[in-house]
Amino acid sequence: MRFTSERRLDDGVLEREFTLGEIPGLLWTPGSASAPAPLVLLGHPGGLRKMYPRLVARARNSAAEGFAAATIELPGSGDRPRSAAAEQARADLHRALKAGEPVNDEIVDRLVLPLVEKAVPEWRGTLDALMSLPEIGGPVGYAGGVIAIGLRLAVVEPRISAALLFAGSFVPRALFEEARQVTIPLQVLLQWDDEGNDRQAALDLFDAFGSKEKTLHANMGGHTGVPRFEEDDGNRFFARHLK
Amino acid sequence: MRFTSERRLDDGVLEREFTLGEIPGLLWTPGSASAPAPLVLLGHPGGLRKMYPRLVARARNSAAEGFAAATIELPGSGDRPRSAAAEQARADLHRALKAGEPVNDEIVDRLVLPLVEKAVPEWRGTLDALMSLPEIGGPVGYAGGVIAIGLRLAVVEPRISAALLFAGSFVPRALFEEARQVTIPLQVLLQWDDEGNDRQAALDLFDAFGSKEKTLHANMGGHTGVPRFEEDDGNRFFARHLK
Repeated sequence: MRFTSERRLDDGVLEREFTLGEIPGLLWTPGSASAPAPLVLLGHPGGLRKMYPRLVARARNSAAEGFAAATIELPGSGDRPRSAAAEQARADLHRALKAGEPVNDEIVDRLVLPLVEKAVPEWRGTLDALMSLPEIGGPVGYAGGVIAIGLRLAVVEPRISAALLFAGSFVPRALFEEARQVTIPLQVLLQWDDEGNDRQAALDLFDAFGSKEKTLHANMGGHTGVPRFEEDDGNRFFARHLK
Repeated sequence: MRFTSERRLDDGVLEREFTLGEIPGLLWTPGSASAPAPLVLLGHPGGLRKMYPRLVARARNSAAEGFAAATIELPGSGDRPRSAAAEQARADLHRALKAGEPVNDEIVDRLVLPLVEKAVPEWRGTLDALMSLPEIGGPVGYAGGVIAIGLRLAVVEPRISAALLFAGSFVPRALFEEARQVTIPLQVLLQWDDEGNDRQAALDLFDAFGSKEKTLHANMGGHTGVPRFEEDDGNRFFARHLK
């Protein structure tokens, strides 16, 4: 892990860009941290530059609660090399959505499964690197999309103690079975009128998770309309489980 | 409204029993209130004596946020006169549940519609009396079950600014249409595995509410298993809308 830049935000949060091999990432640590801070991994749909304003807002919010936050670019997004197969799957998905056709499982599998296979080890390697920093310590949370990545991480990565998942993307059928193996506390955000997301599938996935403590927060509006108060609710969820 | 007893709880909350005509009720006001306190009406399934431990816990929690809280006995519950028709409907419901039969709409209508028709004017009369007290003022919230009563109150009572509804009881089909007329902010609690409640009907009702701001909080467990943290979430919901 190599830090390539750092700057102090006006609220005292230290923002550092890093690379881990070919993967670019961002780390935010609270300005006032005295002890090692619990870490929240910020999931997102890919495209760090485009997602930056929302990511930094989430990171600042986490830092205000005493959490460090980090994110990495997804495989095939941002400046990272494209995969021809993933590009084809994405094009097929957009064509189906534009035509108002149902998105069939085969497209979802082609789009999401290879992404999960590639992204999850990258997140875990990032976690290894981050946990070796003296300013990071304690339990880890995962927050955000892609829900399929968060789901797999919750199953395979024992350092992740709680996850706040955003039900805003397609989930391959195979992962519904895997969801039963998730046992960590979950908070699942669902935008009730999310045009790019199947509400019933999201409810089925919530039902499938094996966790004893799981809470669904459904709000009105589309994909990007998550109400501001859910940020505070997310902080309180992590405060209950990471402290 | 006639106060029949008062006592100070150990956290300073003033608890007063009252009667309003034949209706018994309870009022809790924060110990430290300097200005008139916003009021939260505590809905419940009937039987003040049996419900008291949970009601006083909810009232103390509200008082800690600076809210007054009040509740009244439901028609046909506790020491109030029984209605033969309601008793028959209740017996028919229990028979159907015990036999594992689906609860048909006709039973629900017989059980819930007369209760709504009778209870809602009583709640409104209670609100008239409470709002005339100098220690009560500002916007009003409704919190709890019976959801059909909360729904009707949200439609007809303009003093109610926000409602935290517990999706834990049967709702007549006619009220699904009425739900579209509800426009105040809502938070709806759903116990995902509530044995006495139809999950899909609860989701359909959430969908039907006309409110622009409505949030569903679904948690694991049965009817009485609402997690403790939902009390704080409820307080924050009312803090956003009653202050």
